[in-house]
Amino acid sequence: MDRNETIPEITAKIFAARAERGLTFAGLAEVVGCSPVFLAAVCYRQASATPEQARKLLHALGLPETLLPQLTAYPIKGGLMPTVPADPFLYRFHEILQVYGLPLKAVVQEAFGDGIMSAIDFTVDVEKEADPKGDRVKIVMSGKFLPYRRW
Amino acid sequence: MDRNETIPEITAKIFAARAERGLTFAGLAEVVGCSPVFLAAVCYRQASATPEQARKLLHALGLPETLLPQLTAYPIKGGLMPTVPADPFLYRFHEILQVYGLPLKAVVQEAFGDGIMSAIDFTVDVEKEADPKGDRVKIVMSGKFLPYRRW
Amino acid sequence: MDRNETIPEITAKIFAARAERGLTFAGLAEVVGCSPVFLAAVCYRQASATPEQARKLLHALGLPETLLPQLTAYPIKGGLMPTVPADPFLYRFHEILQVYGLPLKAVVQEAFGDGIMSAIDFTVDVEKEADPKGDRVKIVMSGKFLPYRRW
Amino acid sequence: MDRNETIPEITAKIFAARAERGLTFAGLAEVVGCSPVFLAAVCYRQASATPEQARKLLHALGLPETLLPQLTAYPIKGGLMPTVPADPFLYRFHEILQVYGLPLKAVVQEAFGDGIMSAIDFTVDVEKEADPKGDRVKIVMSGKFLPYRRW
Amino acid sequence: MDRNETIPEITAKIFAARAERGLTFAGLAEVVGCSPVFLAAVCYRQASATPEQARKLLHALGLPETLLPQLTAYPIKGGLMPTVPADPFLYRFHEILQVYGLPLKAVVQEAFGDGIMSAIDFTVDVEKEADPKGDRVKIVMSGKFLPYRRW
Amino acid sequence: MDRNETIPEITAKIFAARAERGLTFAGLAEVVGCSPVFLAAVCYRQASATPEQARKLLHALGLPETLLPQLTAYPIKGGLMPTVPADPFLYRFHEILQVYGLPLKAVVQEAFGDGIMSAIDFTVDVEKEADPKGDRVKIVMSGKFLPYRRW
Amino acid sequence: MDRNETIPEITAKIFAARAERGLTFAGLAEVVGCSPVFLAAVCYRQASATPEQARKLLHALGLPETLLPQLTAYPIKGGLMPTVPADPFLYRFHEILQVYGLPLKAVVQEAFGDGIMSAIDFTVDVEKEADPKGDRVKIVMSGKFLPYRRW
Amino acid sequence: MDRNETIPEITAKIFAARAERGLTFAGLAEVVGCSPVFLAAVCYRQASATPEQARKLLHALGLPETLLPQLTAYPIKGGLMPTVPADPFLYRFHEILQVYGLPLKAVVQEAFGDGIMSAIDFTVDVEKEADPKGDRVKIVMSGKFLPYRRW
Amino acid sequence: MDRNETIPEITAKIFAARAERGLTFAGLAEVVGCSPVFLAAVCYRQASATPEQARKLLHALGLPETLLPQLTAYPIKGGLMPTVPADPFLYRFHEILQVYGLPLKAVVQEAFGDGIMSAIDFTVDVEKEADPKGDRVKIVMSGKFLPYRRW
Amino acid sequence: MDRNETIPEITAKIFAARAERGLTFAGLAEVVGCSPVFLAAVCYRQASATPEQARKLLHALGLPETLLPQLTAYPIKGGLMPTVPADPFLYRFHEILQVYGLPLKAVVQEAFGDGIMSAIDFTVDVEKEADPKGDRVKIVMSGKFLPYRRW
Repeated sequence: MDRNETIPEITAKIFAARAERGLTFAGLAEVVGCSPVFLAAVCYRQASATPEQARKLLHALGLPETLLPQLTAYPIKGGLMPTVPADPFLYRFHEILQVYGLPLKAVVQEAFGDGIMSAIDFTVDVEKEADPKGDRVKIVMSGKFLPYRRW
Repeated sequence: MDRNETIPEITAKIFAARAERGLTFAGLAEVVGCSPVFLAAVCYRQASATPEQARKLLHALGLPETLLPQLTAYPIKGGLMPTVPADPFLYRFHEILQVYGLPLKAVVQEAFGDGIMSAIDFTVDVEKEADPKGDRVKIVMSGKFLPYRRW
Repeated sequence: MDRNETIPEITAKIFAARAERGLTFAGLAEVVGCSPVFLAAVCYRQASATPEQARKLLHALGLPETLLPQLTAYPIKGGLMPTVPADPFLYRFHEILQVYGLPLKAVVQEAFGDGIMSAIDFTVDVEKEADPKGDRVKIVMSGKFLPYRRW
Repeated sequence: MDRNETIPEITAKIFAARAERGLTFAGLAEVVGCSPVFLAAVCYRQASATPEQARKLLHALGLPETLLPQLTAYPIKGGLMPTVPADPFLYRFHEILQVYGLPLKAVVQEAFGDGIMSAIDFTVDVEKEADPKGDRVKIVMSGKFLPYRRW
Repeated sequence: MDRNETIPEITAKIFAARAERGLTFAGLAEVVGCSPVFLAAVCYRQASATPEQARKLLHALGLPETLLPQLTAYPIKGGLMPTVPADPFLYRFHEILQVYGLPLKAVVQEAFGDGIMSAIDFTVDVEKEADPKGDRVKIVMSGKFLPYRRW
Repeated sequence: MDRNETIPEITAKIFAARAERGLTFAGLAEVVGCSPVFLAAVCYRQASATPEQARKLLHALGLPETLLPQLTAYPIKGGLMPTVPADPFLYRFHEILQVYGLPLKAVVQEAFGDGIMSAIDFTVDVEKEADPKGDRVKIVMSGKFLPYRRW
Repeated sequence: MDRNETIPEITAKIFAARAERGLTFAGLAEVVGCSPVFLAAVCYRQASATPEQARKLLHALGLPETLLPQLTAYPIKGGLMPTVPADPFLYRFHEILQVYGLPLKAVVQEAFGDGIMSAIDFTVDVEKEADPKGDRVKIVMSGKFLPYRRW
Repeated sequence: MDRNETIPEITAKIFAARAERGLTFAGLAEVVGCSPVFLAAVCYRQASATPEQARKLLHALGLPETLLPQLTAYPIKGGLMPTVPADPFLYRFHEILQVYGLPLKAVVQEAFGDGIMSAIDFTVDVEKEADPKGDRVKIVMSGKFLPYRRW
Repeated sequence: MDRNETIPEITAKIFAARAERGLTFAGLAEVVGCSPVFLAAVCYRQASATPEQARKLLHALGLPETLLPQLTAYPIKGGLMPTVPADPFLYRFHEILQVYGLPLKAVVQEAFGDGIMSAIDFTVDVEKEADPKGDRVKIVMSGKFLPYRRW
Repeated sequence: MDRNETIPEITAKIFAARAERGLTFAGLAEVVGCSPVFLAAVCYRQASATPEQARKLLHALGLPETLLPQLTAYPIKGGLMPTVPADPFLYRFHEILQVYGLPLKAVVQEAFGDGIMSAIDFTVDVEKEADPKGDRVKIVMSGKFLPYRRW
């Protein structure tokens, strides 16, 4: 994955080391003891690791511990892509919001009341669904429901 | 749910009838025989129903069959909200893309190869996860993986 | 307050009745039993009232109870103004974000860790501070701190 | 806090020195004799320090006095983030404006008349509110009310 | 002056009455006892008149007093034109900002310190300067200097 | 004044020399024989100096004459700031246009006919108005009126 | 020419009358005594006619004289199309600016000095150039050169 | 002409050589045997020269022939300025499009039918018109008319 | 196909008549004697029909001949969708441009020289390619190559 | 083809080697065994090559095999141009979408049902059509039809 000038230097170092050692996010996540998506988010500086997680990751990648603060600091998140991403993989999520956003709001709020699904107390995972007509990507999001406060 | 001038007339009629009869998308979806999110998408003109589905829906809502073509026609999709939605419920999905988009791309393509998760051959469903620290919204997306063609 | 075409009809009705009866948000809030800012948010369809709150409000304004569902429904929030508001009162909040946003992030996260101040489990109130050099507007926001989840 | 290319060099130096010496904005503010948020604003070049404040700050950080003019010059403010910030912490303030902006205007102008809360003759402070359901962030803004002039 | 759909109805009524009676802003301003630019700002709902000013204006125009609240209410200001106006008269002010904005900042802050010229405690007037090479438009702005607060 | 990457190199050199020698635009303008705002505009490459003006300026700043062509060349103007500037000093001029633009158009064209105030055959100057309630910034613009041609 | 909702009503009336009577801008311009492009600009409310011109035009179109003020008033110009027009005919002028704008600036300023070609003291005319390889559109613009003022 | 970071390196080299040798586009165009505007377009990489033209140009400027491919390659055109240029000279062309675009379309299509003026099979030239009231810039565009194809 | 407020009235009438009579663009195109895509473009007012074509179309749809001028007039083209369309069918063409635009430019200009494929002297047709793995949409565009003119 | 700062380094290397060796995409594609457009897409990092394809390409260009991973990695696609490209060749495809997008949707969905043409399972090729009135560019796109899923 190349040519994204807004990607942090630490990310580039991690991707290089991962490629060199033939590692995968799936494998590294097992070592670190977390979800592969969360691990990739740490690598892109979209999440902050605990010192212990950072240490394990750097060790597995053969990178020096001096990089540890760059993985545990609280990053300025977002901003890795334009508002509407041009990359087709990323764009599909924008399209899903445009097409299924209001239907989701209607169904969720019908069941939960006026509020939102948290994107902070939130996890997202990926699974591969084998399918004779072509394998499917399954994405499971789980966010705490936050009801609006009346005061 | 009110004040969205880009929402089609047929949608407004359905929401009014649903409120009057005290129906829910969950209940209507059982009658129609489909997912509640898909049903809500039909009501927002983001999906086209089969004639049979449309007939059942109109009947349950007490609306005339003359509206049927408005539910089975192939709509111009999207455009119900600004590019970056201002509504907090909807915005969170934009935030998830900004923060977890590239990590998801990294993990999915590591497992599947160069390609995308289809947003067309695609389903999305909602579940309520009881949790002592506060109920959680679970959203499950499933899209066919489409590998890039080389030619 | 006039000429904002995106303002909902119910809002216009409430503002007219309030002007006619010489009521204030401060006074109405006491009747309804909530904060004046929350009440104004209900009137602009940025918050949903409980049925009891809605009934008290409509009664105080001399408006019919048939409008009640329009105050208790879960609204599509935001969108009453452009992304960067042109009105000078509103713009100042955008300016505060541009100038003091990152300093606030630095100070809050230093004290709380990686996370955000919720805008959902959130209250905001206004006070008048008498000051010989000119009265001051005091705005007090209180939002639950939400730490980022690691998974 | 990393990867924000628009952040001034002097800011980066201060953050590095602060991390190395294990200092906090809270602690530095006591040394300098000002609010932690104001101090952070000085560090981000969103506010200009007095020469005395600048000297104390540089001394505490172990940075040379030659940097003093960079802390006392009148900066071009704003521009550290996009118009609508992608970072979730920062975005919430945009959301608060979108949702509670007009209600705040209605309540403030009802009490003060036609005018604005100054963002220049303005202070903002942060407090931690302990709460059994989860600690809360309290943000207190205080700005001089400026009535519109008729001429 | 026509075809601006965002112009308030009250403005259209005033312009029609003014044209019919052959009045000018200069003449009306004398009757009302204020500056012509301020008066025009009241008519465009960019400023709020005192009840006395509003009464005099309506009387001079032959419009009913029932319109008075529309001239004294505190308007949502701005928004009469796009961010960068297409009209050549209006655009020139944008151009002046683009070309002379930073020079003005340098000269004003050199003389006054870190702060701004208020656009609230502010007046603007127009004069005609006779000039053999072609008459000149003289625009005089006067705004209170607001120094940034340190706290 | 720092951190504006679009500011030309020659501007940075001039600001540095001016600070080192403790000069002001007001003082330099007397030496060069022009208005301080015009001089600042030359320094920002928003105006082209005559060779004589450029020579005097460089001499006063102790800069080499080889920089002369950079002050006399015809620059590509504008572009030093975003379309809507984030800096509060600069933004106020945008706000003045949004709020008082159409009123100014109405008053000027009532007096002059269909046309514009030139931003080319144009001067702008700054004065300090002492005022017991706080000093005021006075900005005087003078532009040739250009009537629209009919052909 | 249809479907442009920003086109003024008076324009629509003129186009309808012109079509009904089988008139052309070329023919009408002879009657009115002006250039066809100027006449079309008057009809689109991009220019103001003299009372005499307006009277002749309305007479030729068989429209009532009560419309005269709508043709002589000073319009808010521009705004008939998006910033970058989608219509291919109109877009080509945007493309010409993108491709040949800086070359034109270099050549014009080399010959005239630092300044601009006025778009106010300006005429534009159209001719048909017969050409065996396909007729050509010739557009001739003539604008007064305005040198920048030094002050 | 300076400070435009999107201007290609080859352009900067040509401008420097031209200034050093005291050459003009008018003079160089005679040597190369083409129009000065076309020549300037070649220098800005908005047009591709023939090898012979490129050789003559480089020779006249005293630049090495190794730069020839940079003048004959087919460039990615446009992109030298923002969509709406901030420079006053360039902006006027945008203004002309906004004000006179639809009138031009009406007059051209009345004479030619449904189609466009080509911006590819296109020339543009500049002349100086002496005028006692001030010299005028004359710009002559000539583009092949392309009728829309029906199929 | 519904809910697109920018779609012309004549288009809505044609779609209604077509649905009522059970006609298709394929069938209508045979009657009119043109390509189905061109016919659909006429119906969307993106192309102008000849009087004969318009007459045949209206007759086949059972619509009155008084609508004929609305099909033969030269329309303002484009503008039926936002710059980046939200509808997934339409968006894919934007994606193709983003992904394959520069490769197409490289291959076409390698074969043809510096120039463009005309979008005016242009046809586009659709075919259905049967394929055991799923039918394919074949789109064939043919546009005259226009070489850039040197002058 | 020059001056596009977002173009990846590997692309620049390939273009340089291709120019030096006098190779064409057409010729290289034969060596690699794929379509010239696909090959150009690989070179622009808009498509990922197989290791075998990458090896053949590098060999033909005389580039080292160490570059192979840069051609086989899964790139972040798009983003080589602004949303609406300024280059005339590229813009025409945007124009085709604006003008013929909805007609294409109408014709394709009439034949295939509610769904889209895939831009992933997709090929695009270029041919030269000799034509006495001027050669034509023929572009053939073929994408799998993806019907919307109902669930």
